[in-house]
Amino acid sequence: MATDTSAPGADPAPSDYVQPDVDVAALRRLLDGRYAEVRDLVRTNLAAYSSILEEAETLSTDDYRERVKELVVEMAATGQTGMGFPQEYGGGGDIGASVAAFETLAYGDLSVLVKVGVQFGLFGGAILQLGSKHHHDEYLADLITGRTMGCFAMTETGHGSNVQAIGTVATYDPDTQEFVIETRGEGSNKDYIGNAARHGELAVVFAQFEVGGRREGVHAFVVPLRRDGEVLPGVRIEDDGLKMGLNGVDNGRIWFDGVRVPRTALLNRFADVTPEGVYESPIENPNKRFFTMLGTLVQGRVCVGGAGINAAKVALTIAVRYGLRRRQFEATSEDEEELLLDYGQHQRRLFPLLARTYALHFAQEVIAAQLHEVFSETESTPDTEKNRRLLESRAAGTKALGTWHATRTIQECREACGGAGYLSVNRFAALKADTDVFTTFEGDNTVLLQLVAKGLLTDYASDFEDLDQLGMVRYVAGLAVETVLEKTNAHKLLERIKDVLPGGDEWDQESGLLDSEYQLAMYRYREEHMLGGVARRLKRGIDDEMNPGEVFSLVQDHVIGAARAHVERLVLEAFVDKVRELPDGDLKVALGLLCDLHALSGIEADRAWFMEHGRLTSQRSKAITREVSDLCRKIRPICEEYVDAFGVPPEMLRSPELVG
Amino acid sequence: MATDTSAPGADPAPSDYVQPDVDVAALRRLLDGRYAEVRDLVRTNLAAYSSILEEAETLSTDDYRERVKELVVEMAATGQTGMGFPQEYGGGGDIGASVAAFETLAYGDLSVLVKVGVQFGLFGGAILQLGSKHHHDEYLADLITGRTMGCFAMTETGHGSNVQAIGTVATYDPDTQEFVIETRGEGSNKDYIGNAARHGELAVVFAQFEVGGRREGVHAFVVPLRRDGEVLPGVRIEDDGLKMGLNGVDNGRIWFDGVRVPRTALLNRFADVTPEGVYESPIENPNKRFFTMLGTLVQGRVCVGGAGINAAKVALTIAVRYGLRRRQFEATSEDEEELLLDYGQHQRRLFPLLARTYALHFAQEVIAAQLHEVFSETESTPDTEKNRRLLESRAAGTKALGTWHATRTIQECREACGGAGYLSVNRFAALKADTDVFTTFEGDNTVLLQLVAKGLLTDYASDFEDLDQLGMVRYVAGLAVETVLEKTNAHKLLERIKDVLPGGDEWDQESGLLDSEYQLAMYRYREEHMLGGVARRLKRGIDDEMNPGEVFSLVQDHVIGAARAHVERLVLEAFVDKVRELPDGDLKVALGLLCDLHALSGIEADRAWFMEHGRLTSQRSKAITREVSDLCRKIRPICEEYVDAFGVPPEMLRSPELVG
Repeated sequence: MATDTSAPGADPAPSDYVQPDVDVAALRRLLDGRYAEVRDLVRTNLAAYSSILEEAETLSTDDYRERVKELVVEMAATGQTGMGFPQEYGGGGDIGASVAAFETLAYGDLSVLVKVGVQFGLFGGAILQLGSKHHHDEYLADLITGRTMGCFAMTETGHGSNVQAIGTVATYDPDTQEFVIETRGEGSNKDYIGNAARHGELAVVFAQFEVGGRREGVHAFVVPLRRDGEVLPGVRIEDDGLKMGLNGVDNGRIWFDGVRVPRTALLNRFADVTPEGVYESPIENPNKRFFTMLGTLVQGRVCVGGAGINAAKVALTIAVRYGLRRRQFEATSEDEEELLLDYGQHQRRLFPLLARTYALHFAQEVIAAQLHEVFSETESTPDTEKNRRLLESRAAGTKALGTWHATRTIQECREACGGAGYLSVNRFAALKADTDVFTTFEGDNTVLLQLVAKGLLTDYASDFEDLDQLGMVRYVAGLAVETVLEKTNAHKLLERIKDVLPGGDEWDQESGLLDSEYQLAMYRYREEHMLGGVARRLKRGIDDEMNPGEVFSLVQDHVIGAARAHVERLVLEAFVDKVRELPDGDLKVALGLLCDLHALSGIEADRAWFMEHGRLTSQRSKAITREVSDLCRKIRPICEEYVDAFGVPPEMLRSPELVG
Repeated sequence: MATDTSAPGADPAPSDYVQPDVDVAALRRLLDGRYAEVRDLVRTNLAAYSSILEEAETLSTDDYRERVKELVVEMAATGQTGMGFPQEYGGGGDIGASVAAFETLAYGDLSVLVKVGVQFGLFGGAILQLGSKHHHDEYLADLITGRTMGCFAMTETGHGSNVQAIGTVATYDPDTQEFVIETRGEGSNKDYIGNAARHGELAVVFAQFEVGGRREGVHAFVVPLRRDGEVLPGVRIEDDGLKMGLNGVDNGRIWFDGVRVPRTALLNRFADVTPEGVYESPIENPNKRFFTMLGTLVQGRVCVGGAGINAAKVALTIAVRYGLRRRQFEATSEDEEELLLDYGQHQRRLFPLLARTYALHFAQEVIAAQLHEVFSETESTPDTEKNRRLLESRAAGTKALGTWHATRTIQECREACGGAGYLSVNRFAALKADTDVFTTFEGDNTVLLQLVAKGLLTDYASDFEDLDQLGMVRYVAGLAVETVLEKTNAHKLLERIKDVLPGGDEWDQESGLLDSEYQLAMYRYREEHMLGGVARRLKRGIDDEMNPGEVFSLVQDHVIGAARAHVERLVLEAFVDKVRELPDGDLKVALGLLCDLHALSGIEADRAWFMEHGRLTSQRSKAITREVSDLCRKIRPICEEYVDAFGVPPEMLRSPELVG
């Protein structure tokens, strides 16, 4: 509950510490990284279309939707939204660039962002990744320009995260060589589908593939929805109506009543059917096939995670600037009120979130690069099953942490701006309402963390899905803790932990709190211990002959905790690596402050766990709390530089009276 | 990070435990308490006007504001909104009833709630509490019916929580026997004032009272703003524009340029000026005078806290019902997906919030009763300075906890309903946007907790404000820890703690976790220890000759932590008392489950602190976590009854597809 700030009278900083100067331009170059030019193009576009922030409030929902569509098409003409598509169709041929462009777009109106995501990421991505050349030839050029708008129709009212249970069916009819698309049963209509209520002419529809009475699992089909703006026969569409936010996107529900599409409508990269109705796929295991198809969604997750992190940057930029201008109560002087950010408590509210934003930024840079490499099939990271799995797991974890961080940061920043933060002109209203769904769309965060955990527990995440009761027993019984630990290189890590954390008396020494080896070792220890705990508990449940589902329900919290600990470790590593590779100098010192703050406030937040598991004495726990407060005080003089380096265009801040 | 659920195979419940049946009607009677009839009247009104929930989305802002005003006037005609005013003016003469009515109104559209709060609570309350009989005669009857709409113009753009620093000045001119109201300097305009942008004809304006060049502090004046809808000369009003929520309330900014009002415009209960310009007040100390005037705001805080708690009930009702209908993944069966609320993790998300809602409900009942007694000047609780101070402190604390709880609960419930929770028809959009400002209006929560702490540290909260540097040294130096502890009856409490927490080996015993004496002792121990820590740190800072403001900044987190611990103890006590006074039976067992869950999940959340301070071993900490999960499993079969007992009218849930 209470956080322990440094005792009064304590030396605020050791004498060998020299406060760094921060070169904002250099820090921004570091943050922008490889795709600085792309990011600047998007910044320019955002500034050019900045009126959308106000239009979002003043236009009717219908007009706002049209305006957002216009913007998307106009931005597409600048090349900004098509960077991930092959050059022969008018794209930029650079997946990494497309992620950077998307992330940066999150500085602006988020309906525009999400519409771009639906059109180019989900719809376009499905055509590109699941289709063959004839699909590319038919659709890519027109969708890249926005001439053809499309939907990604996967989720159903009754089936969200559990995609394998969807009720839409595509039955192959060999007589006509067509598929018949059918919404079967209650709750099986598509729902929350972007571009459905108004602009979508085509949809990539996910449906159970049925041929000759046999089901082959979920596959994707290109299905026309509208022609010249009119909904086609057999298709029924309902508007999802007003939403908490993102009202510039036309989400809707879709029912199919015997809609016929040609055999070639199947996006057939991973499975096909012969004209006669024989099902064929190079991937024999149906589960593996399903997850391979779903794996193509990984880019969407990477993009949403990055968007969440960048939305948090907007909120922090406003709140930090406000805290450096707004005064409240005469605290240390009789004549003048104190700046908000000169209160320790206010620093404590904002700076750990600032540090975490930097940490997540660099973690996002790693996953975006990994995505680029796997999907571009570079030599260093070929598109192997193993690399895909690593990529998917890491993308899922980063998306969960990045979007939760956005929700939390935006809320804290809004409250830190008091009543002014409640006025729409000051951006928080839209930021909060629009990002809220990030935690549940493109994969619900808790479900995503369970995927991460399953990936950690076995080399083949998809195998876990396959297990029947007996299989579960065999699987878990055979899963000795050591095996799990070995798979994650724990033995090596444990050695390192032993080196760094000698235990015994030395636990109480102050030395080492700011040593990144110590910090990393703590994060690694937590990860290994939690993962081992999950495996032990699974085994014990099976030994007791419990229903595997019940066992899972009972260990679910541990599963999620282990996954989270794993991703937290990856995030910290990304930040530490980034700091280490910098040449000595002020920039390194300045970034190091944030890295230390991130690492230690993470340990502080979970200090109960570390104490419960013998890795933190109560004395050392209190020392960490003091160090966190001390780091906040060091960050205070340069906090504006840290947020300025995000490079949020001033037009995107609005907030004339808060940050002016 | 991870929460420890029970190990698989553990006995889910000891054999002597019998699952209670819950009589929803009886539980609802218990919750509704003394004012069941009043609450039912409001429920009926809410159902009658339920179309407002949809109108909030479909009407233009202008029309929505008009519709809200209409509703407020029509509800006023039912007597619902005037219950706190004297009967001779058409009121109900029962303050407790007015709080109950207001709280219940929070089940519906919150713009209506806030407009009612502005008109009858703030504007009407100021006339009633700060004015004399001639003010009552002139204004009360018309404001109770809503014929005259008014504003409460305290906050300024540049001055929120620090009301003593406001820049509006009221200069007394003995020649004309008038006050001249003047907005002086940048940021001194009134801001965020409800009823200002459109409907307010009068305003209670807070301004610096100036006479003969001398300032007498902040006082309140009745100032006309409009006549027949036209803004009067010398008054300038600006619309605050679109807000995150509550857009049915017409908030605005007001500037005064030499507006003249008669001498009698001063609300003169606590201070007056003679026609010749001699200032008179029965309260000599200007700080005490100021806080006495502000103390009349206590009713608003009590009301907002209760409204937050009731808004949380709406969210929980929807999320719990959804979790009992929505299925996701085939977990324990091959044929059917699992209900969300059969997942341990989902129980963990919602049930501690449900338990805390009950706890806060009963704490709110206590503070509402206390308010009623002090303001009705009952014999048992006369309107003494001490009782006022206790009331104000408790009201501030309950408001802070209740409104933070609302923000957190609504967010968690929204996420627990996935994408469906994002659609406006399912209520969360409005609940979230409208309640968001509760944490910062009617007193910013962090500032309120500091007030609570100051009240705990001294018998006279207002004295603390007075201290100059020297005074601070004297004050804090004289404030031995023992004195502080004694003032809060700590010596007695510490004895009880010793009895209940024998220490030593017995710490690790399972016995007693469900003993409310143990739970209370833990809460009390934390409170006393934190309070003592604050006093020690203040003293040390002064001993080191630091600037008192800096000392305060350094201990600010501790101050807030101590206040929070204090209020948490009061909340738990209220819940425990309520359970204890019930006769043996199912209802007592059922409520006891929630009380245990609330107490233990509170300790679990702060277990790091208890471990750091030697009050929890790591083994016992883990045992508490297991017990919390066990309690969640016991609550699962009766969770719908718990939310049904809130008695949220079905029309207020909307959410046809979530809860149907």
